[in-house]
Amino acid sequence: MPSAYASLSLPLHCDDHKTIARCISLVENNVAGTQEFLQHLPAANTPVIGITGPPGAGKSTLVDALIAHWVKEEKRVAVLCVDPSSPFNLGALLGDRIRMSQWYNHPHVFIRSLASRGSLGGLHPHIMEIADTLKSAGFDYVVVETVGVGQSEIEIAGLADCTVVVLVPEAGDEIQTMKAGLMEIADVFVVNKADRPDADTFIKHLRQMMAPAFARTSAAIPIIKTIGTNGTGIDELSEGISLALQQQHHTDRRYWLLADKAWHLLQQRVMKTYNKATLRQALQQLPREQINLYRFVAEYLKSHAPTE
Amino acid sequence: MPSAYASLSLPLHCDDHKTIARCISLVENNVAGTQEFLQHLPAANTPVIGITGPPGAGKSTLVDALIAHWVKEEKRVAVLCVDPSSPFNLGALLGDRIRMSQWYNHPHVFIRSLASRGSLGGLHPHIMEIADTLKSAGFDYVVVETVGVGQSEIEIAGLADCTVVVLVPEAGDEIQTMKAGLMEIADVFVVNKADRPDADTFIKHLRQMMAPAFARTSAAIPIIKTIGTNGTGIDELSEGISLALQQQHHTDRRYWLLADKAWHLLQQRVMKTYNKATLRQALQQLPREQINLYRFVAEYLKSHAPTE
Repeated sequence: MPSAYASLSLPLHCDDHKTIARCISLVENNVAGTQEFLQHLPAANTPVIGITGPPGAGKSTLVDALIAHWVKEEKRVAVLCVDPSSPFNLGALLGDRIRMSQWYNHPHVFIRSLASRGSLGGLHPHIMEIADTLKSAGFDYVVVETVGVGQSEIEIAGLADCTVVVLVPEAGDEIQTMKAGLMEIADVFVVNKADRPDADTFIKHLRQMMAPAFARTSAAIPIIKTIGTNGTGIDELSEGISLALQQQHHTDRRYWLLADKAWHLLQQRVMKTYNKATLRQALQQLPREQINLYRFVAEYLKSHAPTE
Repeated sequence: MPSAYASLSLPLHCDDHKTIARCISLVENNVAGTQEFLQHLPAANTPVIGITGPPGAGKSTLVDALIAHWVKEEKRVAVLCVDPSSPFNLGALLGDRIRMSQWYNHPHVFIRSLASRGSLGGLHPHIMEIADTLKSAGFDYVVVETVGVGQSEIEIAGLADCTVVVLVPEAGDEIQTMKAGLMEIADVFVVNKADRPDADTFIKHLRQMMAPAFARTSAAIPIIKTIGTNGTGIDELSEGISLALQQQHHTDRRYWLLADKAWHLLQQRVMKTYNKATLRQALQQLPREQINLYRFVAEYLKSHAPTE
């Protein structure tokens, strides 16, 4: 059957940025034929590297430096920048992005910005599909960069083969280090702007806070000091990422990750047979004071058997 | 049919703390008979008030002061404290809790701590059911307090009729005010520790950041200055909460909230017919290099038609 994908030259190749960009737009909008396209994606071993952390930690500067490092090694890199679609921090993020602009026309670097749509604090609803599309094109690395806000940091851990959490030594460092969400997803910690005077104290605190976690895991999570603006520590970071990826290769964690992703896709497909708007309409026909949601859902399920 | 609920004196009454505590334990553990119990809960109009914000903002001190305020008005109050079950911030949170301990034996105040289980950064998986159980007991207010970490702040907005976001003027205030997640869920803002010298500057920044949101909503979100430790601003906060609850009474928002909750329950029930462990086992039988998740899920769905 003819679909929008039929006009693309497939399978994708990492040097054909134009086709990749068009293909991502199709996937992003879930046009007819997308499921079929995804089901025929060639298998790929490209690792997905998640980069996250609080606003102002210097994530984009780091990604910029990592791209430079990999390009020098003749690698092909794809970068997905996910911007929370909140009006509040748009300005700051756009400022960040400008730092990466030198790569927009490089033949070995593909960059795409995505706005997180709808889902408050989450990544883009089709981020997994878009990342898989990029993987199939044969890049050496797919980087997903997102500010650690709301549930995006949890989603990125489910998406990435290696999650890098970027922190920065600050007066308000307590808030950052207490952010349990960021703590638990890190495969690699980066302390950026490590030339600040309180960097070593910050790292000491970080190690102390991580101490309880050592009991659970076999290896300590590496903490890498960087200065994104002048490239200090980027070699070590690249090595740390490679090491983390190799270690996972031999563990079961990737299957757990895959199962999480599969569960997410399964849920998406199963719930598509139900309609939230219809559910709300049914609710709105009841006087609010008398609603027992548990009974309502039980009855709704009986009368709305899924018919695919 | 006899169930653990049969031994309880139902319906619950807000003064019978012992029965309420036992009942919550049953709901928390989802013992046999829970669905039936929930489906027969009497309707209740008790508002649920969510209190959230970053660690160290003084949420527990504020809740403590709010309890004192309501107790003086002869109100009955139930408080659910949700602790992220991360090992990292346990100490700090337990420290907070001690401040509320004067209320543990008060006949008009019921307090229960819940550890968020499993779901990283989320609230307790059965928080909605537990809150509904408390509502049915005829309390005047049900307060849910949680630290704004990970996705808990998004979940609390789906649970509460009124969400109070507590902030504090700090050197690292930028990080807080940039937290888009907290921004978008607030019905009432509290700037606690308002006697700090930079409080007014902080509030000015907050108003500026909220400006784009004014375009979308009819009314500005109130910002209330408090000093939790000496009770300053608690009258205003209580009034602000009442006002926010009244306004919602006349809007459609409660139906949207209800539909969100119903959708969540529906998803829980529908997905119960699938098993994540089985899914993972099926995945593990495949060589990882050859897995196409989209095809896998499509085939899994075909061979695992739900049978309830």
